[in-house]
Parts: sequence; structure tokens; C-alpha cells
Amino acid sequence: MRAARFYNQGDIRVEEVPEPRLSDGKVLVDVEWCGICGSDLHDFTMGPFMLPTKPHRVTGETIPLAQGHEFCGRVRNPPDGSKLKDGEAVMVDPRMLCRECMACKSGKTACCQRLGYIGGATNGGYAERVVVEERSLYPLGNIPLEYAAVIEPLAVVHHAVKESAIQDWNDKSVLVLGGGPIGFALVLLLRAHGASNITVSEPASIRREQVAEFAKNVINPINENVGDVCRSFTNGKGVDVVFDCAGVPIALEAGFDALGFGGLFIEVAVWEKPMTIPSLKLLAKHITLKGVFIFNTEDFQEVMQWMAEGRIKGYEKMVTARIGLDDIVDKGFKELVNNKDSHIKILVNPRLKE
Amino acid sequence: MRAARFYNQGDIRVEEVPEPRLSDGKVLVDVEWCGICGSDLHDFTMGPFMLPTKPHRVTGETIPLAQGHEFCGRVRNPPDGSKLKDGEAVMVDPRMLCRECMACKSGKTACCQRLGYIGGATNGGYAERVVVEERSLYPLGNIPLEYAAVIEPLAVVHHAVKESAIQDWNDKSVLVLGGGPIGFALVLLLRAHGASNITVSEPASIRREQVAEFAKNVINPINENVGDVCRSFTNGKGVDVVFDCAGVPIALEAGFDALGFGGLFIEVAVWEKPMTIPSLKLLAKHITLKGVFIFNTEDFQEVMQWMAEGRIKGYEKMVTARIGLDDIVDKGFKELVNNKDSHIKILVNPRLKE
Repeated sequence: MRAARFYNQGDIRVEEVPEPRLSDGKVLVDVEWCGICGSDLHDFTMGPFMLPTKPHRVTGETIPLAQGHEFCGRVRNPPDGSKLKDGEAVMVDPRMLCRECMACKSGKTACCQRLGYIGGATNGGYAERVVVEERSLYPLGNIPLEYAAVIEPLAVVHHAVKESAIQDWNDKSVLVLGGGPIGFALVLLLRAHGASNITVSEPASIRREQVAEFAKNVINPINENVGDVCRSFTNGKGVDVVFDCAGVPIALEAGFDALGFGGLFIEVAVWEKPMTIPSLKLLAKHITLKGVFIFNTEDFQEVMQWMAEGRIKGYEKMVTARIGLDDIVDKGFKELVNNKDSHIKILVNPRLKE
Repeated sequence: MRAARFYNQGDIRVEEVPEPRLSDGKVLVDVEWCGICGSDLHDFTMGPFMLPTKPHRVTGETIPLAQGHEFCGRVRNPPDGSKLKDGEAVMVDPRMLCRECMACKSGKTACCQRLGYIGGATNGGYAERVVVEERSLYPLGNIPLEYAAVIEPLAVVHHAVKESAIQDWNDKSVLVLGGGPIGFALVLLLRAHGASNITVSEPASIRREQVAEFAKNVINPINENVGDVCRSFTNGKGVDVVFDCAGVPIALEAGFDALGFGGLFIEVAVWEKPMTIPSLKLLAKHITLKGVFIFNTEDFQEVMQWMAEGRIKGYEKMVTARIGLDDIVDKGFKELVNNKDSHIKILVNPRLKE
């Protein structure tokens, strides 16, 4: 079969590879759509970070490996006893959980101490077929297969919103730092949770335009003082919650400034540089900073349920291009390097031809 | 009257100064005991930081000023209509609140946006007499005047414990980073809140000995891996809560390592250097970092009530020396510079003679 395998920084090759092998409890999936994630891109431009250069502690595998962890597809020839039907459309939870650590046992699988993922620790969705544990496959029901790949990033931001422990979003003022793929998805989920007073700070004009339909206010932090603008929106109080989807010092400082006393700062971004905190503001304002990562199993299931119920509006807008696997380097990774701000999510299909 | 006035870094002079002037709502207090706080020492060794070199935004005053904000005393000739009696023993809440900002109006006076304090924005307790707003004076009742000055630092740590929002401390494992004055006081308050599973990490042997009576475990982070030891105390889980009373990078990193997933890190220390966070641990473990500062009015009142009820054990051990005002530089500030680890709190009395 065909797969796009990561060999090294800047070196992804679309080539013929052996078919994946089935084993107990696993099911073969024909990949339909796989989203290119920022972490895949990061590995391509500056990595490998997430991909194993020595045998992975969970799978024992090493590069070359196919990336891709945001993928859906159709079940192919399910084994006897499977609850899945041949040809059934499914979404993949790409996490490989140890299911034995205290985090897993308590249901906080996002904190699994030996977390791996398909497309990182083993071959992923940039391929014609992938073998997946049956318990990680979720039938789509009425969720359209064309958009199901965005379930994965939506689960990440749903988790981030839930970890705030805020029940009633209606009266909360929210600042989202960064209007990229995660910031955009977060705005959609915040609205699904009932938030309406959402401000997004984003320096790229294309991204501001993309998110303007869903956010109440959109700020250009190059021209405007984010803290002052947020205070003007909140009768001088400052915002209740900040979500950092930018992961850069200047945005974090603006977020700490924009927060009111007792405010909550949710850290969603993975930082490339050391994360330095304005400690006097942290203390004087009594700010709570909380880190979040990935999602719990129930977050993934809830996002699928909410999508099926029509509760999450606008996720179709997340897909800004659809390409074939053969074009993944030029029209996928390189396009994201050269025209990053024009895209939210590029989806890859292994059978699509130009 | 006599007062010890801060002129500049390393320059505190005990000298004759004018008597403080009474005004409406204020009461004259004969200072009995005033504790030397780490922030006063910090101004002496490296400042001025907190003391105003240009007119203070609240009081308009500038140095030279008498420091000292942890003080108790006796009311002297209260004005007509005062509820206080002549000679009545009182503790001073040294905070000067604007009482107009949103924080003050909501009762979160620790977050007052225009906070000043007696001994910082105006003359403080390193003097024979101070004039204080009557509403900032609390009759001691059965709290001994000899120890009342420690109410102020105890209120700081009581606030820190309360801000964790943890109700039941009995089943919580706690790591305290740093066994100096604030770390020591925090251990006493944690016990008063019901915590018993308390580990203190402190590199100085004298401080480890001081705190050993009140903590379950005491670690020397120079010889021991704090995270490993904490995991061994908690069946591999890591601690539930860390209080940082050290404010240095190596301690913060140890605290992040020692925390279990979903753990809470309360930042109590004022950092001299930039506060850099291990961001991947913050995310992967879903750590919550919360900053706290000063105290709310009710925290101060509760500490006094708890002391009166005998609920806070061991506070007498906080007082490691008592000196006269004339000796404040040599036996106070310089002693704390040269023999820091031997002391928890040095109390100063303006009438004590050798």
C-alpha cells in the first residue's frame, strides 16, 4: 500500500510499504481523511521530536514511520465477533493508553504516564490502511465522514474547556490568545459550551477574518494593547478566563495583563521556548494557571455526541483544503510552511487524485 | 520619639523623629513588638524595592521612612467615640486598602489594586508609636502580646492554604518547598487546617531541625531527589499539593516533579529572578499553578480567632530573638544577613534595653 513516511526533518517520502498486520482485538481501517496537525508539521520543520529515533518505549518502533493521528475511515473485513460492520464509517481515537497507570485507572487518561499515539509511536493515517484497536474506533452515525477528522482537534479543545471546571460560560468573558487551528477550534467549542463573550487576539489578518464569524471581538495585538481592549470590554474588570493557544512570551504577558483578579489562565499550547511567567502579576492578581493536554476518552465521545446532535457549529469551516496522499509534501506540509495563515486544517485522502 | 528609618540600601538609622500626627478615624498605638519581615530585609540588602523613592501613589510619602508591618501594641488615649480602651492590647492589620476597587468591593482585599501598607507606604512599626486607622486595629483578647506580631505572617500563610480551596486536608499529601519563616509558618497553619502528611524540603540543617517537630517528613534536597522521596511517601503517586516558599528555579522544578497528575502548586514566594515553568510537565500532568499574596481581611480575623481558641500550635517557636530598637541594625538586620538560617522571626521592641 501507499504511505507517506517520515524519515527525517524535511524528508517525508510517499512510497510503497507493507500492509499493516492484524492482531487480536484490532481492526483494519481504510483511511478516508487524515488532518495534518501542527505537531506533525513541527516534526517536519524542526524535528524529529515526537517520532522515535530509537525504539519507542511503548511499541519498539523507529522511524521511518507514517505520521497522522487525526483520521477517520471505513472498517474493512472486521474479524469474527467484532461489533463493527464491513464498510462502517468510524473515527479513530489515536491514543495508545497503558491502561495500567494511576491516571488511566482513575479515568484521567489524558494524563497516562506511558501515553503513545498512532502516527507517533506506530504508523498513522498518512497511509491507505491502518490497524487500530477496536475499542479505539467509534462509529460515526450521522457525522459526515468528510469532516470527521476534525473530531480529534475538537476533543483537545473540548478537554481544555472542561478542565477549567467552569459550569456556566454564559456570564464569562474569555480571551483566546492565537487564532490558529487550535484557537479557532477552541472558539467553536466555547460557543458550544455556552460562551458568547469571546475575544480572540491574533496578529495574522487572514486568521482574524476566519475567526471573526464566531468570536464577539477580534484584536490585532500588533496595533492594540490587548489588556486595555479587554478591560474596555469588561467595564475595567479584565477577562475571567484566558486560553493560550499561541505559546509565545508576548501573548502570555498580554494574557496575564488582560486577566482580572482571581482569573484563570488555561495553557493549551506546547511551548518551544522556556515558559516564563510574570510572577508578580501571578501573585498580586491571584491568577490560576492550569496546563491541559490531549483529552480523556469521555471528552472524545462527548465531542462526537455533540457533533451528532448539531451542538458544535462551524466545524466545516475548519477544513481549508483537501489533497491526495501523493501531494502531501508539496500541497500539505510545504503549503503549511509557506501559507500557514491561510489554512486551518488540510485533510489528506489516500485515494484522491488530482 | 525614636524610630529606625530606612534611608537607602544598607542604611537604616535609629534616630529621633517627630511624633506621628492623629487624624480622623485614626488611633495612636504604642508599639510593643514588631517582627522583621523578609521583605524589609530584602529592601535593606538589595533595595529599595517596596519603599518609595518618589512620592508614594497612596500616601505621597518618600524615604526616609520607618519599616515594620508585623506589629502589635497598646492603644494610647483613644479619641472620643472610639470602641478601643486606653492601654488595650491590639494587633495591627498593616494593609492600606483603597476600599474602592472591584477587588476591595468584592471582599478580595488581598487583590486591592492600590494596595499600600504601613511600614512601606508610610512610617511603620520600627518606632515608638504609630498612628493607625481604628478599623485596622484588633483587640488581642487572650492572645499574648509577646507573640501577637506573628499574626501577620500567619495570616499570609492562612490565606495561602485557604486559596487552595481544599476543604479536607486530612487525606492530602503536601510538600512545602523551603523551611524559612514562611515555610515554617505554613506548616503550622497546614496542621491547624487538619493536614498531617506534610513533607518539607529545606537545604539548611538548622531549618530542617526547626521544622522537624511539626512536619511528618523533612528532606534535604541537596542529598535527596525530592520527587523520588515524595513518590516513595505516596505509593508512587506523587504529592497532591506543593507550596513554594523558596522562590528559586531548582525548588520549583523539584516541586513540579514531585506533584502527581492533576496536582496543585501554590506559589507563595516572591521571586527575585524570572519564574520559568517546566511547561511540558505543566501540560502533561495537568498541573494547576496558583499565585497568592498577602491576605484578605477575614483571613487576618480568622487567624486571631484560631490563635485565641488554641487551634494554631507552635507559633511561640517562631520567635527566635527579641531585641531593642537601638539594636535593630546589628542584632536585627545584620544578624539576619549573617545567621539567616538560625532565625525564624526576630521581634523588635522600642523600649527594650540591653
